[in-house]
Amino acid sequence: MPTYRKVAIVGVGLIGGSIGLALRQRGLAQQVVGIGRRQSSLDRALACQAIDEASTELDEGVAGAELVVVATPVAAVADHVCQALAAVPEDCLVTDAGSTKGAICAAVESRLQDAGRFVGSHPLAGDHRTGPEHARGDLLEGKTVVVTPTQSTPAETIAKVELFWQNLGARVTKLAPVEHDEALAATSHLPHLMASALAAATPEEWLALAATGWADTTRVAAADPELWTQVLAQNKPAVLAALGRLSEQLEKLEANLLEENWSELRESLQNGKRIRDALGS
Amino acid sequence: MPTYRKVAIVGVGLIGGSIGLALRQRGLAQQVVGIGRRQSSLDRALACQAIDEASTELDEGVAGAELVVVATPVAAVADHVCQALAAVPEDCLVTDAGSTKGAICAAVESRLQDAGRFVGSHPLAGDHRTGPEHARGDLLEGKTVVVTPTQSTPAETIAKVELFWQNLGARVTKLAPVEHDEALAATSHLPHLMASALAAATPEEWLALAATGWADTTRVAAADPELWTQVLAQNKPAVLAALGRLSEQLEKLEANLLEENWSELRESLQNGKRIRDALGS
Repeated sequence: MPTYRKVAIVGVGLIGGSIGLALRQRGLAQQVVGIGRRQSSLDRALACQAIDEASTELDEGVAGAELVVVATPVAAVADHVCQALAAVPEDCLVTDAGSTKGAICAAVESRLQDAGRFVGSHPLAGDHRTGPEHARGDLLEGKTVVVTPTQSTPAETIAKVELFWQNLGARVTKLAPVEHDEALAATSHLPHLMASALAAATPEEWLALAATGWADTTRVAAADPELWTQVLAQNKPAVLAALGRLSEQLEKLEANLLEENWSELRESLQNGKRIRDALGS
Repeated sequence: MPTYRKVAIVGVGLIGGSIGLALRQRGLAQQVVGIGRRQSSLDRALACQAIDEASTELDEGVAGAELVVVATPVAAVADHVCQALAAVPEDCLVTDAGSTKGAICAAVESRLQDAGRFVGSHPLAGDHRTGPEHARGDLLEGKTVVVTPTQSTPAETIAKVELFWQNLGARVTKLAPVEHDEALAATSHLPHLMASALAAATPEEWLALAATGWADTTRVAAADPELWTQVLAQNKPAVLAALGRLSEQLEKLEANLLEENWSELRESLQNGKRIRDALGS
């Protein structure tokens, strides 16, 4: 017997679609409903069997759901969460899948008397590609999902949302929304800015001489500029702080090079290697 | 019948080993001799069948060769090229596989009366891993090798070295040594510095929250710090120029973020995406 009666997914892009696929492939839900603005996206999600049913009306789509996952662009998440909470049964929980958490969680709590049926989530999985046609049922398997309770989130809400992600094969880490944003500024938002700056700094006539190093280093720059502008806008102070740390490192490397201080340059590269090696491949 | 009688490879690391493997797997040479300082590296290269014979003496190893490829760290290349040219038969050509070309080609031409039997090469293939145990016979297949003749390089030398790389499955592009270095500063040396700076700018307690974006963007930072210090040292002016272009881009992004100029930030990210997309995956 499926764990969930009805799960509603608001936004059936890469992440929403992958959650739907995973729920269906694992037989976890009796019904997976996808909600989106455009019928064309919903049709693509239906075609790749990421959802059982589709609706362009949020209120209608979430009605009777046991769990709602909001996987829309971050600037829209708080609105969709509040709208869903107003339309669902009393025992229904709501979470999201946005790359930022501070602004979203604060907005939801400031707008609702009782935001206790919401807790934020951020699955650390994805791709520079978008759309349900790139969704994969195993996208979350073995990946980390950060769940971000606030001081007013009930333990039961946290436990149920945690279990939801675990049911999809993910590992859950809990962090306060602001801590999440500071960490992700360094591990995700800054790499994105940097990849974009590096691509833009490459004279195009030399692209034919780019090999795997350039390709790896700039890969995330291919992601959607609108989605990323929203992410950077929502995490401005932490991203600026991370940019400051990067500038310091770049200035140090530049000074080593200018002053031909090769032993220090080697040590700096060794330090970068040590931290990179700590992650594994 | 094999195309080459004897090919000598000075330095049997990842690149030298892969050249040896390709020559042997394609039946291109009667004999592939590997030359190295350490018997242990030579033994590993013999064990993975990258070479037929090994020698720790350059003069002895290159004797009777028809072609010598110097694949040692860039700071040693010019010495090894000159030493090889003094020890080989008159009809033997010498090339190299170093990531920088200006300093190497200038050093060889300044030291030898007749440097016409040498032309520089740079195979745009590699890995952040080193050593013959990571060598692959198909490493150069479909990859670009930049061959860098100077005004005094005879056409015959260029043609023969070009054919050598084509025989291994690579495409050849010809560029003057200085042009090569300017382009590679942007497409390879700067990405390396940047990956290292990004890794170093990441507070280690947040590494657990790094996903594929961070992993891709920092991958090349795992490469050998000593080899890269030599590369950066040999290409100082072009790398500083490339760093300057990157800093401009980063400053622009930082200003967009500070001033909350979201439409310009989106345009900058769109520009980075356009250049990244031009490369393909």
